[in-house]
Amino acid sequence: MGEFKHLCLVRFKEGVVVDNIIQELSKLATELDTVKYFGWGKDVLEQEALTQGFTHVFSMSFATAGDLAACMAHEKHAAFAATFMAALDKVVVMDFPFVTVKPAPEPEPAT
Amino acid sequence: MGEFKHLCLVRFKEGVVVDNIIQELSKLATELDTVKYFGWGKDVLEQEALTQGFTHVFSMSFATAGDLAACMAHEKHAAFAATFMAALDKVVVMDFPFVTVKPAPEPEPAT
Repeated sequence: MGEFKHLCLVRFKEGVVVDNIIQELSKLATELDTVKYFGWGKDVLEQEALTQGFTHVFSMSFATAGDLAACMAHEKHAAFAATFMAALDKVVVMDFPFVTVKPAPEPEPAT
Repeated sequence: MGEFKHLCLVRFKEGVVVDNIIQELSKLATELDTVKYFGWGKDVLEQEALTQGFTHVFSMSFATAGDLAACMAHEKHAAFAATFMAALDKVVVMDFPFVTVKPAPEPEPAT
């Protein structure tokens, strides 16, 4: 099955309670059926030349681009997105069909 | 088992043959045993205000931060990294232990 990813890299504004944001986002992802998969991470190597100041990554997967669009249009997402964007100092969002290279798909059986 | 991610967002320089780079990177990821998982994607929504000009995402997973460090120190990685970085117009790299929220882990069996 295909996997369509919605990936956000962010840096939060000073004073933002990041744990609360992550909790709200986790709740939203859990409630919305179109979200197949949600996870996040905080950069730990802190190599400023590589992170460009970004600190957190949020990753959601959908079955299709249509499911992503449906999620973005959902009123619960709209309500959250306003709070989320207001808490950010900088953000990059990428939306893409994910190509898995390794682990490789099972080889076709020999004929 | 834990999952430690190495994530790169990039924009390639004009004239770079991106398919060749992806092919080399796929070969490298397949050869290096510390790389548990490798995949990539190209942004398709092209919302410049959100992508900030980044076009491609590369995602590798390792069992531990130590395995990532071992991979980065490997001579095959060093050789590839020089070619890769020279092909980039801009790049962000994030390294983080990945926290999976959904699908949630299986609940403990009731006692």
